[in-house]
Amino acid sequence: LDDGDAERLTELLEPLHAADIADLLEQVDDDTRVDLVRLYGREFDGEILTELDEGIREEVIAALHPEVLSDAVRELDTDDVVDLIEDMEEDQQAAILDVLEDVDRVAVEQSLTYPEETAGRLMQREMVVAPEHWNVGEAIDYMRAQDGLPDQFYHVILIDPRLRPTGYVTLGRIMSSPRSVKLAQITEDSFRTIPVLQDEGDVAYAFNQYHLISAPVVDADDRLVGVITIDDAMAILDEEHEEDILRLAGVGEESAISDRVIETTRRRVPWLAVNLVTAILASLVIAQFENVIAGMVALAVLMPIVASMGGNAGTQTLTVAVRALATKDLTSANVWRVVRREVMVGLVNGLVFAVVMGLVGWVWFSAPMLGVVIALAMVVNLVVAGLAGVAVPVLLDKLGIDPALASGAFVTTVTDVVGFFAFLGLAAAVLI
Amino acid sequence: LDDGDAERLTELLEPLHAADIADLLEQVDDDTRVDLVRLYGREFDGEILTELDEGIREEVIAALHPEVLSDAVRELDTDDVVDLIEDMEEDQQAAILDVLEDVDRVAVEQSLTYPEETAGRLMQREMVVAPEHWNVGEAIDYMRAQDGLPDQFYHVILIDPRLRPTGYVTLGRIMSSPRSVKLAQITEDSFRTIPVLQDEGDVAYAFNQYHLISAPVVDADDRLVGVITIDDAMAILDEEHEEDILRLAGVGEESAISDRVIETTRRRVPWLAVNLVTAILASLVIAQFENVIAGMVALAVLMPIVASMGGNAGTQTLTVAVRALATKDLTSANVWRVVRREVMVGLVNGLVFAVVMGLVGWVWFSAPMLGVVIALAMVVNLVVAGLAGVAVPVLLDKLGIDPALASGAFVTTVTDVVGFFAFLGLAAAVLI
Repeated sequence: LDDGDAERLTELLEPLHAADIADLLEQVDDDTRVDLVRLYGREFDGEILTELDEGIREEVIAALHPEVLSDAVRELDTDDVVDLIEDMEEDQQAAILDVLEDVDRVAVEQSLTYPEETAGRLMQREMVVAPEHWNVGEAIDYMRAQDGLPDQFYHVILIDPRLRPTGYVTLGRIMSSPRSVKLAQITEDSFRTIPVLQDEGDVAYAFNQYHLISAPVVDADDRLVGVITIDDAMAILDEEHEEDILRLAGVGEESAISDRVIETTRRRVPWLAVNLVTAILASLVIAQFENVIAGMVALAVLMPIVASMGGNAGTQTLTVAVRALATKDLTSANVWRVVRREVMVGLVNGLVFAVVMGLVGWVWFSAPMLGVVIALAMVVNLVVAGLAGVAVPVLLDKLGIDPALASGAFVTTVTDVVGFFAFLGLAAAVLI
Repeated sequence: LDDGDAERLTELLEPLHAADIADLLEQVDDDTRVDLVRLYGREFDGEILTELDEGIREEVIAALHPEVLSDAVRELDTDDVVDLIEDMEEDQQAAILDVLEDVDRVAVEQSLTYPEETAGRLMQREMVVAPEHWNVGEAIDYMRAQDGLPDQFYHVILIDPRLRPTGYVTLGRIMSSPRSVKLAQITEDSFRTIPVLQDEGDVAYAFNQYHLISAPVVDADDRLVGVITIDDAMAILDEEHEEDILRLAGVGEESAISDRVIETTRRRVPWLAVNLVTAILASLVIAQFENVIAGMVALAVLMPIVASMGGNAGTQTLTVAVRALATKDLTSANVWRVVRREVMVGLVNGLVFAVVMGLVGWVWFSAPMLGVVIALAMVVNLVVAGLAGVAVPVLLDKLGIDPALASGAFVTTVTDVVGFFAFLGLAAAVLI
C-alpha cells in the first residue's frame, strides 16, 4: 500500500468477498482506509458499501471518486440502494438517485416513501408472478421465454385477477411436477403475506417462526407490491439481536467498535447519567442510616454485598423476561405463572445465599446477630429482585417502552434501594 | 378443553402453524398441556415437537400415545429428527429410531456420529447434484425425470468425478438460461463449502456474512456429504444470539421461561456464587479502611456511587467488546486502537462525571475536599473500567474461554475493587 501498488492490491483483494473487504476497511485506521479506497479505485464494488458500518460508510463514500461511486451504485439491487441511501442527507441522496437508471430510480424512490424500518424498505421489486389458474407447463414455458428474470428467486407467486397473492409454489416443486398439474394444487402451506407497513423486527420474527424462504409484501388493499427474501430477514434478525444486547448493556444501539471517541462518549453518557441518579438514590437511603453505620462500621463493609447480589439476581431475571417478551414467549396468558416462578426462584436463591452470608457475617465479625441481619436482608432482596425482574419489563412493554432499553436502570434502582434499606433497617432494629 | 371436545379443539388448532401450537403448549400450565396433547391426539404433527423448548418437549413426548409419536416422527425430515433425538436418553433414542424407515434411520444415525453443534448435525441429505460438465438442458431433463426430488431445494450442486462439489447453480438461473448453456458457466459467485466438523456458530456466521441460501457440506476429503439451508442457519443464529445475551447476564444458556423453579435455580446459583465471591473481595477492600469510614461516615454513603458507575461503564465497554469479538470485528489488527479508544472514552466520561459528583459531594456534605476525592476516584475508576472492559474479554478469548460467559464477573470485580480502593484510599490520604 505504501508503494501505491494498485495492481498488487487488486490482486490481494480480488479473491475476497465484499463482506470481508468491508470488514478489512473497518479494521484499519482512518488514513490507511482512505489510501486503500483511493488505490483500489475502479475495482471498487458496490456491495462493499452495503456491508460497511454506517460511520465508516460515509467516510468511504467521501473518499471515492464520483464516477467510481456511480458505477458501484448502479450495480446494486434496488433494496440495497435503499439501504445505502436512506440515512443520507437529501443532496447526497439526490446525487446518487441521479446516476440510477429510470426504472431503478422510481423503485428506490417509492421504497423511500414507506416509513423507516418497515417491510416496504426491505422488499425488492424483482419477482416472478403467475395467474393462479396456470398449470406447471404454462409456468415453465413462461419462465423459459422471459428475458428479465431476477438473478435469485425461489418461488413463483400466484395472484388473482385483482393482483392479490393467493399462494406460492417453489421452483423445486415446479421442477418435480408433471406439466398438467395446476399450480394452485402444489402451493406451500407456509404461505403468508406481509403488510408493507409491518415493522422489520416483526418481519424477521415471522421468517424465523414460520421458516419462510421468501414472502410476498402486500399493500393496504392486499395487492402484491414486492417480495422479501430470507437473507434480508436474517440480516434484520441479526441487527435486532445486536440492538437488544447493546440496549440491555446501556450502550447506544448503533454502537460499533469503529466509532470515534466523541460519538461513543455521547452515546454512553445518557445511560451513565441515569445510573448516577439511581446510585445517588441508593446513597440517600444509606444516608438515613449514617448513625447506625457510625455505631457499627462492619455494616458499611457488608452492605455492598446485599445490593450486589440483588442487582445480579434482578439482571438475570430481567434478561430472561426481556428475551421472552421479544420472542413472544411471555404473554398475558402466562405472566402470573412466570411472576410466581421468579419469586419462588428468588426465595430459594435467597435462602441458599442467606445461609452462606449469614455464616460469613457471623465468622468474619464474630457477631451472630449480624449474620442473621444479612441473611434476612439477602432473602428479602432476592425475592424483590425476582419480582421486579419480571414486573418492570412487563410494565414497560405495556406502556409501549422498549423493555430492553430501560429495564436495567429501574431494576437495579429497586434492588439497590431495597438492599440497603432492608440491611441497614434490620440492623438498626436488631443491633442498635 | 374441559368438555373433552376433541373435534372443537382440532377445529381451533387446524389453521395454526406448528410453531404457534408449540408456543401455545409452552404457555399453558402443566396439567392443561397434558390434557391438550392427549385430546389433540391423532392430529398431532411432528413439526410441533421440533418447535418446542426442550424441557416441555420431553413432557409432551411422554404424554403422547406411542403410535401418535411414531406417526409424528416419521413425517419429519432427517435433520429435524436429529435435532429432536440428539439430547434424549439412549433407550428413548432407540425407540424413535426403530419407527423410522431404513433409509432415514441410517441418515439419522450417521448424523449422530458427528459431534454436537457441528455442521454434520445440521445438514440434510436430501439434495440435487449434477456432474459439472452437464448443460442446462440435461439438468432440466434429469430433474423432470426424477421421482424423489426434495420438497424444498434452491440449488443444483455441481460435482466432479470424485464427488467434490465445484459450484452451484440456482434453479432461477437454470430457468432463465438456454438449454445449451453449460452449468459450469452460470454458477454463483457466493459458492463456498462448509466442513462437516465446523462449529454451527461459524456456519451461521458464514451464511449471514456471505448471504448464502444453501451451502454444500464436505468431509475431510472435500467430498459432498450433505447440504445446509439458510432457514436452519437462521435458527442457529437466533439461538447463538440468545445464548450470548443469556450468558452476558449470567443465566444458564438454555434457560427458558417455561423451565421449572428448581432447574432455574440450579442454573442461576453458580453465577450468583461467583458474584458473591467478587462482592466479598470488594468488601475485603472496604474492611481495610474501617477506621477511615469510622472517622467520616459520609464515605460509606458515597462509596457505592463510585463502584456502581465503574461497573456500568465496564459493562458497556465489555458488551461492545464481546459483540465485536463474536462478529469478528475485533481482531489482533485493531485491538490496540480499540483499547486506546476505550481508555479515552473512560477518561472523557470520567471527567464529565467527576465534575458532577465533585459538586454533589461538596454541596451535600459541605466538604470541598470530599468532592475532590470522589471526582478523582471517578476518573480513575472509569479509565480502569474502559481498560478492563476490553482487556478482559480479549484475554479470555485468547485463552479459549467464552468471553460472553465470564467477562462480566471479572470486569465488575476489577471496577468494584478499584472503585472502593481509589475512593477510600484517596480519602485516607487526603481527608484524615
